[in-house]
Amino acid sequence: MRLTGKLRFDKPIIQAGMAGGITTPDLVAAVAEAGALGTIGAGYMNAAVLRQEIKQVKRLTNKPFAVNLFAAKLGVSSHQVAKMQHILNRFRTELNINPGQEYIEVHDNLQEKINVILEEDIPIVSTAFGILPSRVIEQLKQNKVALIGMATNLDEARQLVAAGYDVIVAQGSEAGGHRGTFHVDKFSDGCNIGLMVLVQEFLEHLFVPIVAAGGIYNKKQVDALLSMGVAGVQLGTRFLVATEAGTNSAYRQALIKATGDETVITNVFSGRPARAIYNRFVDEVTKSGVAPLPYPIQNEMTKDIRSAAKKSGIADFQSLWAGQGVGSVKKEETAAAIIDSLV
Amino acid sequence: MRLTGKLRFDKPIIQAGMAGGITTPDLVAAVAEAGALGTIGAGYMNAAVLRQEIKQVKRLTNKPFAVNLFAAKLGVSSHQVAKMQHILNRFRTELNINPGQEYIEVHDNLQEKINVILEEDIPIVSTAFGILPSRVIEQLKQNKVALIGMATNLDEARQLVAAGYDVIVAQGSEAGGHRGTFHVDKFSDGCNIGLMVLVQEFLEHLFVPIVAAGGIYNKKQVDALLSMGVAGVQLGTRFLVATEAGTNSAYRQALIKATGDETVITNVFSGRPARAIYNRFVDEVTKSGVAPLPYPIQNEMTKDIRSAAKKSGIADFQSLWAGQGVGSVKKEETAAAIIDSLV
Repeated sequence: MRLTGKLRFDKPIIQAGMAGGITTPDLVAAVAEAGALGTIGAGYMNAAVLRQEIKQVKRLTNKPFAVNLFAAKLGVSSHQVAKMQHILNRFRTELNINPGQEYIEVHDNLQEKINVILEEDIPIVSTAFGILPSRVIEQLKQNKVALIGMATNLDEARQLVAAGYDVIVAQGSEAGGHRGTFHVDKFSDGCNIGLMVLVQEFLEHLFVPIVAAGGIYNKKQVDALLSMGVAGVQLGTRFLVATEAGTNSAYRQALIKATGDETVITNVFSGRPARAIYNRFVDEVTKSGVAPLPYPIQNEMTKDIRSAAKKSGIADFQSLWAGQGVGSVKKEETAAAIIDSLV
Repeated sequence: MRLTGKLRFDKPIIQAGMAGGITTPDLVAAVAEAGALGTIGAGYMNAAVLRQEIKQVKRLTNKPFAVNLFAAKLGVSSHQVAKMQHILNRFRTELNINPGQEYIEVHDNLQEKINVILEEDIPIVSTAFGILPSRVIEQLKQNKVALIGMATNLDEARQLVAAGYDVIVAQGSEAGGHRGTFHVDKFSDGCNIGLMVLVQEFLEHLFVPIVAAGGIYNKKQVDALLSMGVAGVQLGTRFLVATEAGTNSAYRQALIKATGDETVITNVFSGRPARAIYNRFVDEVTKSGVAPLPYPIQNEMTKDIRSAAKKSGIADFQSLWAGQGVGSVKKEETAAAIIDSLV
């Protein structure tokens, strides 16, 4: 896989930069050692943790790897917080944790993390949810960092290219986890475009390398996408059950059990649309009729519940991100075995 | 394309059986003459009209063609009719037509149409929304009619194969028009699975020919899908702008103008989820907060509006069915030219 002039990988595979403790240094290094592109999912990390993770990966491999960041505008607003906390408190009661706060604060730390990335000489940064601020893009480009941006429609992809991004990930509607869509406030169903259409549109209209993401789980699909002209493919869900991943055990079991028709795009966990396995949390919050708050407020509000559920091994109150290919994810494997099965 | 033992076509292309006056005899015959499988969309026809259409196609071609029927269970219920009519009457006022009735009746005519199909010796019947009654399947099989069923998840596909269907169409979430999903009352987002996942799952788990449908508009996609192992591909949206199609002019213009991110899956037109170009009707009925009635009631209720809008050349009050590939449909062409461009 050739991403930019000097960045070449033996295998046309990218391990998605899943945030929230999934992309352990072990996973990222194992992917890199197998000849593919591993990614630290740093969206929710602070700068100190990111530096620690980078150093740990470097101890395990000499190969290049990427860091994934969020490029979302943080539109913080506090209305409806109390109403939503009221719904959420029922889960807290069952988990024996304190009722939720009515004041929500969110930190970003973007510039601090960029500084770490430059100091640690990371060759690739990938982002979702939007476009990095132009001063940051300039800083990264001056330091020859390659930029991979995620887009869910042609307009977003064009904006990324115009801003200087080097590679575009076409995120099909099949993909697990957060939709990369820039503006979720406006009509967003139009940004859930199937991979087969999205990839073909990007290949026709853009002149940068295109990476396909969403619902990819086997070699037949990879070969078909490569034959269409993509530079590579990005997978998340299969790497969630990699032995090296940080995925907790209840989540792993839910992934292995789920069929392909059990996922849904929902904003109940974070305030942004994301594809997850349908569980009690999705069901009850949706049916409550109380609209989730905008990202990142809803995300902060549900954090204690998701975290307690992880600790207690309860899948029903976790955000079980998964793509539509989850029905074919049937066993835990090493990252190397996963990559081998795809090429 | 080999569908069953004796049914072979030069081109691996099926023209979808779009209902509502789209599939004119000219279109079906032109597709057949070009070496692909043309389909009469007979879902809303009565038996007499179907017979007339079949005879007309036969006057234009000697090649085999298919008839598409609905295999939905008609769960008629009249609650909420008045509430929905109240919302709909605002469109009627603008269109200068009478306020809607509060009593809704729906006819099916399935057996009468089956009789016509057998009398006219039609070799292929395709269906959506479910499985034909077993007595009908038996009757068709005794007369060596091949059965093509549409499925939106693996479970539906398995049910169709078990019932005796010969070929399965994998309808990806990209597809325009009605979702073929059997039970729309239950959690239905799980049945909007991207084509790249759905096709691969069907190919792995089923042992009948698989046809890919949804968002397909060019040769690159067709080649990629054939390389995965499908027997053929089915297209709707591109044939909507075929010169031979019955598509009205306002609808054609909307298709040619639309971008790929302007479609939405909605049940406001018929009570069943279907993908259409987002327009005023979708916007206002959705935002009214009044839930659409179950199919086919909502369909009957909105029929006068859609029909008057067609006559008046108003796209905003029509059901503008379109797949996610619509952004690449940029001109009217003959069916033969469309088919040529795909193989």
